[in-house]
Amino acid sequence: MSDRTVVLASHNQGKLVELRRILEPQVGGVKVLGLDDIGDFEEPVEDQPTFEGNALLKARAAAVATGLPSLADDSGLCVDALNGMPGVLSARWGGRPKSDERNNALLLDQLADVPDERRTAQFRCAMALVLPGGAEVVELGVMPGRVQRGPTGDGGFGYDPLFVAEGYEVSTAELSASDKDAISHRGRALRAMVPHLVELLV
Amino acid sequence: MSDRTVVLASHNQGKLVELRRILEPQVGGVKVLGLDDIGDFEEPVEDQPTFEGNALLKARAAAVATGLPSLADDSGLCVDALNGMPGVLSARWGGRPKSDERNNALLLDQLADVPDERRTAQFRCAMALVLPGGAEVVELGVMPGRVQRGPTGDGGFGYDPLFVAEGYEVSTAELSASDKDAISHRGRALRAMVPHLVELLV
Repeated sequence: MSDRTVVLASHNQGKLVELRRILEPQVGGVKVLGLDDIGDFEEPVEDQPTFEGNALLKARAAAVATGLPSLADDSGLCVDALNGMPGVLSARWGGRPKSDERNNALLLDQLADVPDERRTAQFRCAMALVLPGGAEVVELGVMPGRVQRGPTGDGGFGYDPLFVAEGYEVSTAELSASDKDAISHRGRALRAMVPHLVELLV
Repeated sequence: MSDRTVVLASHNQGKLVELRRILEPQVGGVKVLGLDDIGDFEEPVEDQPTFEGNALLKARAAAVATGLPSLADDSGLCVDALNGMPGVLSARWGGRPKSDERNNALLLDQLADVPDERRTAQFRCAMALVLPGGAEVVELGVMPGRVQRGPTGDGGFGYDPLFVAEGYEVSTAELSASDKDAISHRGRALRAMVPHLVELLV
């Protein structure tokens, strides 16, 4: 592996595509591997109560398994009317089997009687970088907005079709990839991480 | 209607049975009517962010509609690992169609990876009494405990099969009605309300 290889501790192709899109223009020749490229790797159970805790858990496990600098994020939608939930449970909010469609439908049902002025929410992301030697950094990113009353758009993933960022009239599933990166929680956290990666990899 | 008639602003037969069981020994000759006994009554949408707010909303509407002293409760299960949710959304947590089975299954799925020491929860109840003249009282009751990993027992209703009260080894669905009343959130709130009802009705 080259000196410019980093692992993203995720099987989520959507996240991998987003990460490469943001990182490649910043770090020439960087190679981002996902867990599907790694072979045998037992993902830890994401049982921490915070995004930071889960991101560190995953990045540490990937750094140990691969001996490579490893990034992991934990992200989710924090809805004020749900006291900040789904939060760390965003991906599995609707129970089993996990599905974006199921999660979105449940969230809309739960918020059915919540009036517009109380439908505020934030997408939050904690991005952790763990080096094989043990050094660790966590960066946070937030995108404030609100949960609309039905899905629109077919871009993005997760709760994107329900979420309208502050200052926008369309959902984050209706934004172009580059427009979304510019404001997204993951984009913000990742850009905050870039200087650390540049220092490490260049 | 007699001087000792009160309305419980609920269609929930389980709540009505509980209320009669607790109130009848305390207030001789009291008659408790439910919404099914009232005829035309448009229930307000329970869209308030607090139990107190929803209980008052319902009791006010019933007092206006019937001209009788009206009680209403809003109750729910507040799970610490869900930042206090399902809370006011307890009855509709699993979305549509509303069902205890669906709500319980979803809650178990959401908490699947939450370790035992973080499965603490409280059943909370706000009980409101509103008189036709406009006087209002709210009393609160809390039952602390934890969410177990599967349902046990066939008594009670709602989340009772999943909830183990502090100091107990069995779920609240396995307690006798009188044992449950002695410790339950609704029992506590209602007993706190009894002096107000006695003053009013006796």
